[in-house]
Amino acid sequence: MAPQLDGYFKQVDTSAGKFIERLRQAVAIPSISAEPQRRPDVVRMSKFLEEQLKSIGATVQAHPLGPQPGHPELELPPVLVARYGNDKNKRTVLVYGHYDVQPAEKSDGWNSEPFELTIDEKDRMFGRGSTDDKGPVLGWINAIQAHQEANIDFPVNLMMCFEGMEEYGSEGLEDFIHKEAKQGGVLHGADVVCISDNYWLGTEKPCLTYGLRGCNYYGVTISGPGQDLHSGVFGGSAQEPMTDLVRVLGSLVDTHGQIQIPGVMDMVAPVTDEEKDLYPGIAYSMDNLFESLGSKTSIHEDKDRTLMARWRFPSLSVHGIEGAFAGAGAKTVIPAKVTGKFSIRTVPNIESDKLDQIVFKHVKDIFAKLGSKNTLDVQLIHAGPWWVASPKHWNFEAAGKAVERVFGIKPDFTREGGSIPITITFEQATGKNVLLLPMGSSTDAAHSINEKLDRRNYIEGIKLLGAYLHYVAEEKMD
Amino acid sequence: MAPQLDGYFKQVDTSAGKFIERLRQAVAIPSISAEPQRRPDVVRMSKFLEEQLKSIGATVQAHPLGPQPGHPELELPPVLVARYGNDKNKRTVLVYGHYDVQPAEKSDGWNSEPFELTIDEKDRMFGRGSTDDKGPVLGWINAIQAHQEANIDFPVNLMMCFEGMEEYGSEGLEDFIHKEAKQGGVLHGADVVCISDNYWLGTEKPCLTYGLRGCNYYGVTISGPGQDLHSGVFGGSAQEPMTDLVRVLGSLVDTHGQIQIPGVMDMVAPVTDEEKDLYPGIAYSMDNLFESLGSKTSIHEDKDRTLMARWRFPSLSVHGIEGAFAGAGAKTVIPAKVTGKFSIRTVPNIESDKLDQIVFKHVKDIFAKLGSKNTLDVQLIHAGPWWVASPKHWNFEAAGKAVERVFGIKPDFTREGGSIPITITFEQATGKNVLLLPMGSSTDAAHSINEKLDRRNYIEGIKLLGAYLHYVAEEKMD
Ligand SMILES: [Zn+2]
Ligand SMILES: [Zn+2]
Ligand SMILES: [Zn+2]
Ligand SMILES: [Zn+2]
Repeated sequence: MAPQLDGYFKQVDTSAGKFIERLRQAVAIPSISAEPQRRPDVVRMSKFLEEQLKSIGATVQAHPLGPQPGHPELELPPVLVARYGNDKNKRTVLVYGHYDVQPAEKSDGWNSEPFELTIDEKDRMFGRGSTDDKGPVLGWINAIQAHQEANIDFPVNLMMCFEGMEEYGSEGLEDFIHKEAKQGGVLHGADVVCISDNYWLGTEKPCLTYGLRGCNYYGVTISGPGQDLHSGVFGGSAQEPMTDLVRVLGSLVDTHGQIQIPGVMDMVAPVTDEEKDLYPGIAYSMDNLFESLGSKTSIHEDKDRTLMARWRFPSLSVHGIEGAFAGAGAKTVIPAKVTGKFSIRTVPNIESDKLDQIVFKHVKDIFAKLGSKNTLDVQLIHAGPWWVASPKHWNFEAAGKAVERVFGIKPDFTREGGSIPITITFEQATGKNVLLLPMGSSTDAAHSINEKLDRRNYIEGIKLLGAYLHYVAEEKMD
Repeated sequence: MAPQLDGYFKQVDTSAGKFIERLRQAVAIPSISAEPQRRPDVVRMSKFLEEQLKSIGATVQAHPLGPQPGHPELELPPVLVARYGNDKNKRTVLVYGHYDVQPAEKSDGWNSEPFELTIDEKDRMFGRGSTDDKGPVLGWINAIQAHQEANIDFPVNLMMCFEGMEEYGSEGLEDFIHKEAKQGGVLHGADVVCISDNYWLGTEKPCLTYGLRGCNYYGVTISGPGQDLHSGVFGGSAQEPMTDLVRVLGSLVDTHGQIQIPGVMDMVAPVTDEEKDLYPGIAYSMDNLFESLGSKTSIHEDKDRTLMARWRFPSLSVHGIEGAFAGAGAKTVIPAKVTGKFSIRTVPNIESDKLDQIVFKHVKDIFAKLGSKNTLDVQLIHAGPWWVASPKHWNFEAAGKAVERVFGIKPDFTREGGSIPITITFEQATGKNVLLLPMGSSTDAAHSINEKLDRRNYIEGIKLLGAYLHYVAEEKMD
C-alpha cells in the first residue's frame, strides 16, 4: 500500500520559505574545519544544529572527540547524535551528515559572499555548505518539522549522526562509530543507514548510489644531496633527485589513462553482460562531461566507457611534487629531496595490500634501471577501501519508490568515482545496508567557488527524504 | 719593479679590528632586496655605505633607478657610484659590488642571529652578507683607508659601483651601466674592471676567475581542463596535464647528466689539449665535492671531469612544477594547468637562440608522440649568456702577482658554473677586460644558513685588493 504523502508534500511547499531561512542561518556560520582559527565557528554551528534539533523535539547529545591529532591545543568539534522517536513498533533509520564546510573566500573568485545565502533569478541558492552538506542535514530536520506541522505521524525512529570534521578527514569519527554502533551504544539499533552527501550524476534525474571507488595514495621520495644546491655550481656534477623522480612518475600511467604498473588491471573484476546493460539507460552524455571538465580533453569518446572509467575501473593520477620549486618565476635550485604524490582509485576486486606491493615493486624496479646513486623511498600515505552495495536491497527499493513518487521518474543507479570512507565504516559497524541518497546536482560545485543548491533540489529533496522514510517503514524486508 | 707593499700590509693588520667593526655594522642592517618590507633597510644600507665612502674622502652619488618593475609603489634602491682619486696620470679601475643580501631568518636553521656578526673560535665570522657581498664591498673602502693611515700614495683612480638589487636580478642596473659607461657618463673612463663577488674553489688556494656559464631557463606549460579537478570524479575520464608533463620532463636529461635533447652537445666547443692540461694542477678533490654536496651522489668519479662538468660543459636541471600540488599531506587534485621549470647551463659555443629552437622542437616532438588532447606551450623565461675572458690579459697578470705577493702562491685560474650576468654587461658596456677576484672561500655558504667569511679571507683579502691595484698600476699593458 503506497503511503499517504500528499499532506506532507503540501506542507513542505507551504513551509519552503522557513526552510530556506534555516539554510540561510546555517550558511552564515563559516564552519570551516580545515582552518584552526575557524574552530569556534564550527562549534557555533554544532550549537545551532543542536537548537534546531531540540526545537523539533529531538533529543540531542554532543559527543566530544578530544583534541585534534597533531594539534593538542585544538579540541575537535563534537559529533551530534540526535534521536527522534523511540517506538519499538517502528523501524529505525540511521542517517549521517556533516555540518562543517570547505574553506571559502570571496577573493577566490566567488560572485557573491560565500557565507551569505544568495538566491539568483534561476532560484539557485549560492553559499558555502549549501549543498555540501548543510542542505541535506537540514533536510532531515525540515522533514520532521513538516510532519509535525501537517499532523502526520512520523513513520520511523530517526537516529541522526552529524559530524563537524568531514572536510578534514573525519578525524575521530571512525572509532566513535565502531564503538557506538555496538550493543548499548548511542548508534545501536538501526535497521538501515542513509547518507545524503553526494550528487546526482546530472541535473535532471535523481539517482541512488550503490558504489564508491577507494583510494590508495602514495609518496615516492628521492633524496641525494644534504641540502638544496645551486644548479650553476652543481649542475653536471651531482645526480639530481628531480631527474630521477620525473622519470619514475612518467612510468606510472600514460596519456590515455592506461596504468603502466604490471598487475593492477589483472585484479579488476571483469565487466559482466548484466552490468554492461545498466549503462546505456543512464542519463549522462559526453557534453555533460565536457561541461564539467571545462574542456574536451576526455580520455574516452563515448558515455558508457567514460562512466565505467569513473565508476568501475581504477585510475592513476599524479598530483604533484613536494620539495621542488613550485612558485612563480625562475629559481635555479637543485632540490635535495623531492616527494612525488600519486594515487590510484581502486575498484572491486583490487586488494589494497597487494596493490601496495606491486606499486612498490614497480617504482623500485624503474628506479633501479636508472642506475642512480640517490636514495628511493616509496610509501603508502593513506588508503580508503572501495565499496559496493546491492542496489536490490529493500533499502534501495524503498528509496527508488520515493524518487518515483516525488519526481515521477525512476532513479538512475549510480556509483561514484570518489570515496566517502565513512560509508564503509557505517556498513561494517552496523552490519546494515547503506544507501547514498543525494540531494544536490552535478552542477553544485561542492568544494569549488560558487557552491550552490538549487531551490528545487532542496525543497523536492526534503520531500524525498520524508517519502523515503515512509517507504522504508513499509518496504518488505529481504 | 715590484711595488712597495709592506707598509700597507702592516697597516691592514693594525687596523683589522676597525675593519671587522665596519663589517659588523654592515651585517647588522638586514638589507634584503627580495622582501618589499625590508626595502627601507636596503636604503639604510646605501646611506651607511655613503657615509663610509665620504669618511675616507671619496665622492659619492646615489643614482635613483625609479620604481621596481611590477611594483609601482616600491622605489628601487639607488646605485652608488663613488670615485676616489682623479689623477690623469694614474690608471682608472672600475670595481663592482652589491650591498643587498639574501633573505635570512634565525628559524631557517642559523646557529646565531643572522644579522649579528658572530665570530667563533676558528675566527669564522658568521652573518648574512658577510661574504656576499658586504665583506668585499667594504674591502675596497678598507684598502683606501689603510693607504691613508699608512701614508701611502693610492696607486690608481678607483671608480666604485655598488648596487642594492643584485639578489633580486639587478633590476635596472644593466641599462644604467650601458648608459653611464659611455663618454660623459659617471662610469666612463675605466681601464679595467674588477668584480669581487664569487668564491675560491676550495678553502686554501686563492683563484682568479675568467669564465662563467650562462643560463637559459624554460617553462613548459601543459593545460587541459578549465579548472582543477577531483581525481575521484574525473580520474580515468580526463587526460591529465601532469601525466603528460612528467613524461616531457623525463625526456630531457638522464641520471648521469647526459642531456637528451638532440643537438645541444654538438654546439659545445671541444676540449683542447692545452685546456686539458690546466685541470690536473687545480687544487680540488672529490672529497671537496662530497663535502659541498653533503653526499657522495656525484655524476663523475674524478676531479678533472667534475670540474669540466661544472665549468665547460652544459648541464640541465629540472627545478620543479608550478600549479601542481606541492604541500605536505595528500591532496587528491588533478591540476588543470602545470608548468615544469628547467634550465640549461650554457658554455662556449652554444648560441642562445639556436638552443631555444632545439629545446622547443624537442619538447614539442615528445609531446606530439604522447597523442594528448591537452595543450602545450614552451617558453624561454630568461636567458643570461656565458662569458669567458682571457686569463692572459694584463689585468689577470696583475691580479696573479698580487695573489702571489699576499699568499705566497700562484692562484688557480678557474671558471664558475653559475652566472654573474653583470660581468658580461660590464665587459660589453666598457669594452674592457673584466676580472673576477674572489675574497671568500668555497665553504662560506652564501645564500645558505650560517653564511660566513673567515677572518683570514677578509683581512688578507683587503691586502689583496690593495696589492692588486698596485700591480694594475704598474703592469705592462698588452
Ligand atoms: Zn560532504
Ligand atoms: Zn565536501
Ligand atoms: Zn653576490
Ligand atoms: Zn648572492
